[in-house]
Amino acid sequence: MNGQLVNSPMKQSSVRSECLSSHNVKELLDSVDAFLFDCDGVIWKGDKLIDGIPEALDMLRSRVLQFLFVLIYWGKKLVFVTNNSTKSRKQYAKKFQSLGIPVSEDEIFSSSFAAAMYLKVRNFPTDKKVYVIGEEGILEELELAGFTGLGGPADGKKTLELKSGFIFEHDKSVGAVIVGLDQYINYYKLQYGTLCVRENPGCLFIATNRDAVGHMTDQQEWPGAGCMVAAMCGSTQKEPIVVGKPSTFMMDFLLQKFNIATSRMCMVGDRLDTDILFGKNSGCQTLLVLSGVTNLSTLIDSANDIKPDYYTGKLSDILKLLK
Amino acid sequence: MNGQLVNSPMKQSSVRSECLSSHNVKELLDSVDAFLFDCDGVIWKGDKLIDGIPEALDMLRSRVLQFLFVLIYWGKKLVFVTNNSTKSRKQYAKKFQSLGIPVSEDEIFSSSFAAAMYLKVRNFPTDKKVYVIGEEGILEELELAGFTGLGGPADGKKTLELKSGFIFEHDKSVGAVIVGLDQYINYYKLQYGTLCVRENPGCLFIATNRDAVGHMTDQQEWPGAGCMVAAMCGSTQKEPIVVGKPSTFMMDFLLQKFNIATSRMCMVGDRLDTDILFGKNSGCQTLLVLSGVTNLSTLIDSANDIKPDYYTGKLSDILKLLK
Repeated sequence: MNGQLVNSPMKQSSVRSECLSSHNVKELLDSVDAFLFDCDGVIWKGDKLIDGIPEALDMLRSRVLQFLFVLIYWGKKLVFVTNNSTKSRKQYAKKFQSLGIPVSEDEIFSSSFAAAMYLKVRNFPTDKKVYVIGEEGILEELELAGFTGLGGPADGKKTLELKSGFIFEHDKSVGAVIVGLDQYINYYKLQYGTLCVRENPGCLFIATNRDAVGHMTDQQEWPGAGCMVAAMCGSTQKEPIVVGKPSTFMMDFLLQKFNIATSRMCMVGDRLDTDILFGKNSGCQTLLVLSGVTNLSTLIDSANDIKPDYYTGKLSDILKLLK
Repeated sequence: MNGQLVNSPMKQSSVRSECLSSHNVKELLDSVDAFLFDCDGVIWKGDKLIDGIPEALDMLRSRVLQFLFVLIYWGKKLVFVTNNSTKSRKQYAKKFQSLGIPVSEDEIFSSSFAAAMYLKVRNFPTDKKVYVIGEEGILEELELAGFTGLGGPADGKKTLELKSGFIFEHDKSVGAVIVGLDQYINYYKLQYGTLCVRENPGCLFIATNRDAVGHMTDQQEWPGAGCMVAAMCGSTQKEPIVVGKPSTFMMDFLLQKFNIATSRMCMVGDRLDTDILFGKNSGCQTLLVLSGVTNLSTLIDSANDIKPDYYTGKLSDILKLLK
């Protein structure tokens, strides 16, 4: 993982990806006021913390610089931006706490929250309902935002008997279908969501994200929201509005909340097509960590034209490089 | 439904679609030796026969022409080509019989059969296994062709507990995953199929078809194989080999079996993007019936560039037009 990855002149992407080193790590830290972190593959895998994470986050939060003989506090703002929609922000804060990392709800931007905020921004009528192909996190965020959600885990055990004369009824007041990662995906939900999108006039089709796979457990990758979203695209023949990474929708909220220019933010992630692309689309600096779904071969493959500014094995490498 | 549909000069497709009439119906019948029928939406909807089907098929099979004072038998060869993979050819023959239509197994070409034949043609090794996301029909055809199928209905009730340390094991000897319509689709099957395609070297990814929706019941359309296939594309980020319509793979078998030029065949179907396209791709004449998923508005829409040679309300219109 040493050296530089120079782009092929054929590719239209950033000039190069630099391996993080003791030479450039200070330059990166000094040029950044806020770090945006993806969670799965950066902070944890499934329910297991990745090596050295508490120490690395702690250092970034409480960074102190010595200028001549004066110590200057220069702690970084930390934000956790996750495409995983199975939890709400509240549930994520609890997960962080259970892993021994103090993170407040305000520092978390999950795609479940983004989906609810998308409806809020669009002034989605509160007398309309929202059908959810996904898990508890989306329903919780909808409720907190004042919307009525249907479906989700409650429809996970529903079965069908496809016999002559049977009519599958759906709620005509559903005005949006939100699709996220759903380990309880079934034909009932797919038919419900499909009928709403095809038959309810103006019904929105919203995807929390389109990640192909994710670390649902620490040992393996599993089909991600991209699988369920594609299924709905297959039956409705429509394309969704995507609110998670790499869509810049969440960035609008971050910018409203923190008065920091995107050029002084660094997006840290393990996926090229969501995290790094999101960072680039938003004008942030970008750091790829190889502790998740992307390996070095994929990064340097000539077919890949999404190049982060920096890359390293795992986040806590920063600590070693600063020593 | 009168008049002609003249193509926009912008579109590259057949010159026009003619509404079937008492003027052109004889011309069609005289120019055709074999009719290929789609089933769902043409012969039946769910388990209900469409009006006048037995009489129309009977007339085509036993057609007699009078030439001067001589009666000439000119019965048409009938073939049933269905994308619905939930049944095997044997099960389809039973369904036809239960609806009072005598059809032999040899006259049926289902996408379940096509999937097994695709493996046969490719000399798929019989010591390799085939994982099925789909229903009984695919497993039956695999067995008849001498292959070992896994998955299908047996995995429909399997559940998962995604906890730390859990490893989902899959059979490394699976050399092909076949995906068709599956009303028992679940996360277990999606993970199984995804692991085989991603991790078993050279594993084939075969789709019976990609129909978005179909008449699983007579009253409604339901997500079709296109939904399950898209889900697998979403998680594997790969495109499948499609063996059903509109792929011409099945036509190779038909041509081997019946010594009839494709120009003297007519494909009758209710779908533009599968049936009619299949007919056109194969060089057949084409007749669209509006008794299934396509309505006249869709046919004449300027966005549609798949134009059948003829169209009519339902197959039995032929009987009335001949009177």
